[in-house]
Amino acid sequence: MDFWRTLESAPPGHSVALEDAIAQLAWNDAGLVPVIASQHGTGEVLMLAWMNREALLETLSTGRVCYYSRSRGRLWRKGEESGHVQRLVRARIDCDGDVLLLDVAQTGPACHTQRRTCFYLTVTGDRVVVTDAPDL
Amino acid sequence: MDFWRTLESAPPGHSVALEDAIAQLAWNDAGLVPVIASQHGTGEVLMLAWMNREALLETLSTGRVCYYSRSRGRLWRKGEESGHVQRLVRARIDCDGDVLLLDVAQTGPACHTQRRTCFYLTVTGDRVVVTDAPDL
Repeated sequence: MDFWRTLESAPPGHSVALEDAIAQLAWNDAGLVPVIASQHGTGEVLMLAWMNREALLETLSTGRVCYYSRSRGRLWRKGEESGHVQRLVRARIDCDGDVLLLDVAQTGPACHTQRRTCFYLTVTGDRVVVTDAPDL
Repeated sequence: MDFWRTLESAPPGHSVALEDAIAQLAWNDAGLVPVIASQHGTGEVLMLAWMNREALLETLSTGRVCYYSRSRGRLWRKGEESGHVQRLVRARIDCDGDVLLLDVAQTGPACHTQRRTCFYLTVTGDRVVVTDAPDL
């Protein structure tokens, strides 16, 4: 926590070693951090998934986004089955070091339902409404 | 899971009761779900925090965003100390019912460091660079 607090008052341009930052990330009990993917250019939020250290290192070194699938219990190279890969454009870390935000260039729809974004359900009054159709 | 899967093939405009959707959210072992807040209008991702059921119900009924602070172990009415409140514009749910995305009208900076967004640290090569200054 002190690691991140020290950065709060650092001027723009100040930097720390990536290796140190990764070591200081607030990995949860399962060794994961939540990762938000947003579309480069538009900023549209596409999805939230999780990474372990290995997934993050692979993503940063290859430029192709790799998550950790909690349901499958293994690395999940986004698009490995669908072809809907994400190319990493920029990776950011939040003030507490417990969330990552990726700008990605998304090939095809991000969502397994074939929608551009996973957030296709909108709260409207006392209903939740389907607000996007799958891409054709 | 079947609840959410059924919606995948429903046409736009199809709806379910909010009460049922909330009951089916994938609350974690601590009774929480991750919540992404993005700025209404620009879509800029401001922060990620957590909500329990009570925080979500309060947010939806009052229109003022209330999270659950894991560090303080209590409801956290965003801006209760800083005045930097978030007014809820739109709430969305993802395809698996395990993440919420809020469009918010943010008063002042979202981040406790006085920056507009919490994501002020950018990975650049083998460094992590401070890329935003606090708002004055």
